[in-house]
Amino acid sequence: MTSVINLEKIKEITENLDLVQAMEEGFIAYSNEQTVVPPVGELLFDEPKGDAHIKYGYIKNDDYYVVKIASGFYDNPSLGLASSQGLMLLFDQKTGVPKAVLLDEGYLTDLRTAAAGALAAKYFAPEQVQAIGIVGTGIQAKWQLEMLKSVSSCRNVYLWGRNQEKTAAFAASLGTEWTPIIAKSPDELARKSNLIVTCTPAEVPLIPAAAIQPGTHITAVGSDTPHKQELEAGVFIKASLVIADSLNQSKSRGEIFKATQAGTLEASRVVELGTAIQSGITRKESDITVVDLTGVAVQDIMIAKAVYHHYKTSTKC
Amino acid sequence: MTSVINLEKIKEITENLDLVQAMEEGFIAYSNEQTVVPPVGELLFDEPKGDAHIKYGYIKNDDYYVVKIASGFYDNPSLGLASSQGLMLLFDQKTGVPKAVLLDEGYLTDLRTAAAGALAAKYFAPEQVQAIGIVGTGIQAKWQLEMLKSVSSCRNVYLWGRNQEKTAAFAASLGTEWTPIIAKSPDELARKSNLIVTCTPAEVPLIPAAAIQPGTHITAVGSDTPHKQELEAGVFIKASLVIADSLNQSKSRGEIFKATQAGTLEASRVVELGTAIQSGITRKESDITVVDLTGVAVQDIMIAKAVYHHYKTSTKC
Repeated sequence: MTSVINLEKIKEITENLDLVQAMEEGFIAYSNEQTVVPPVGELLFDEPKGDAHIKYGYIKNDDYYVVKIASGFYDNPSLGLASSQGLMLLFDQKTGVPKAVLLDEGYLTDLRTAAAGALAAKYFAPEQVQAIGIVGTGIQAKWQLEMLKSVSSCRNVYLWGRNQEKTAAFAASLGTEWTPIIAKSPDELARKSNLIVTCTPAEVPLIPAAAIQPGTHITAVGSDTPHKQELEAGVFIKASLVIADSLNQSKSRGEIFKATQAGTLEASRVVELGTAIQSGITRKESDITVVDLTGVAVQDIMIAKAVYHHYKTSTKC
Repeated sequence: MTSVINLEKIKEITENLDLVQAMEEGFIAYSNEQTVVPPVGELLFDEPKGDAHIKYGYIKNDDYYVVKIASGFYDNPSLGLASSQGLMLLFDQKTGVPKAVLLDEGYLTDLRTAAAGALAAKYFAPEQVQAIGIVGTGIQAKWQLEMLKSVSSCRNVYLWGRNQEKTAAFAASLGTEWTPIIAKSPDELARKSNLIVTCTPAEVPLIPAAAIQPGTHITAVGSDTPHKQELEAGVFIKASLVIADSLNQSKSRGEIFKATQAGTLEASRVVELGTAIQSGITRKESDITVVDLTGVAVQDIMIAKAVYHHYKTSTKC
């Protein structure tokens, strides 16, 4: 029997999952070369403009293999639909039998991205976070804050977004547990926060190197292509520890790619997230650290597994 | 809402579909370069041995895009499971919204393959079929005969399979409408039949060129890799018309690939199925013709569309 799990059920299930832990296990498996992840498949559409990406893979000697189909159709909002659409599929790794269809509409991709941000903070944020700085006001900004709650007790948050109205709405949307302050600029945000998370699709850097204070950790979430860039390349001159979710992907996309191109970062200095966690690298309180997340298929594998496992267990009871 | 259509429902629906017509439209679109079909994605597994293939694509300016996941795990029968597993997904081509999950367990792949065989016979079989010859005794052999009923009134069938017991069981399994004769050899089968369909995974040719009589049509279904071969390469010296489902694929797999390698066939003589149908090429009654089917993703697109369209229409009533 193939289980079909709809978005409502997925939302209910994910409230009970430790996704940060799931991402940790996934990144460790990835860095230990325990995953099989072929190149991403792509379909492009002209009228209307859109794209679909097909990601698939598995962890060796595991129970499942996972296929994710995710699309972006940028005219969708004019039809009252989200631009992002998609689903995940889970198959038995030993027989090929389809075990589950997760009709998540892109929800799990948002969550696994945010959970990786929280994982980065869990290991590399300063011990005393005075203020969190969130750059960007989209759904990912919201999820990053939500996930950070499990790894940091700080509830002071500086917000900045290009659109003032959206920024104000984002600040207003945060629950009473948060104390939001809207920053006048990314510069101000960076000067006042020592845990910065950037989650915009910027192609021109927003965060000035000069504004980064000693003892700051930055997680760069937005850039996942060769063109996007949120951090000035000079940030990497100040950083004593630079971590990539995927060393391989950082050769062709993301902040690390941009900085190595600009000559402010030697590729040999970059450590992979799963390796850094296992090796127990620690920071001095005055260090500046950067984790660059471009998104790795093992995150999809881990979150699909976690959802299905919970579904199966709870359905049995 | 994403429709989830299970195998039982799919079987019920396909009884009401004109799949030969659907394949005809699909091959014409394919030969007219109206399809977008990127390279097949592949996952390989070691313990137990298995593989999964991910095929995806669409017809330009159509309503849907289609993704098919099909796997083969060859230890499955020892677990009481079919080796082949899989499903098809149908997405809105204009928004990316998932429209349907077809939990077909490989059933639709069997059907679309057989429907292409019937399409080949519809256009290229001799006007008077004295006897159909079916080489192979598997599920595809059964489906080829079933589909041929809609395009030929001949019910005399010569059967041959490597395993005598399975061949006898296959003959016994045919309904009373058929008059089956078990051939002593592929040679006898070829001499007595003027519509031959080969559907085995043979890697050493079964059908001797010398046995093929004038006025015979052959549809070669089994070979879809660079290694498989059912027809002696000399068959192509005798053939006046040679058709490939995909000219591109015939450069690297199937009977045509083998014959061009052996020097018995000039690649320039090969016509693509969709082109041959449109151009109205006809045979003289004494001609020997060959259609080589290696399987094209447009067949998956067409059958998934046909099933979903029927499902949607019948559910509305």
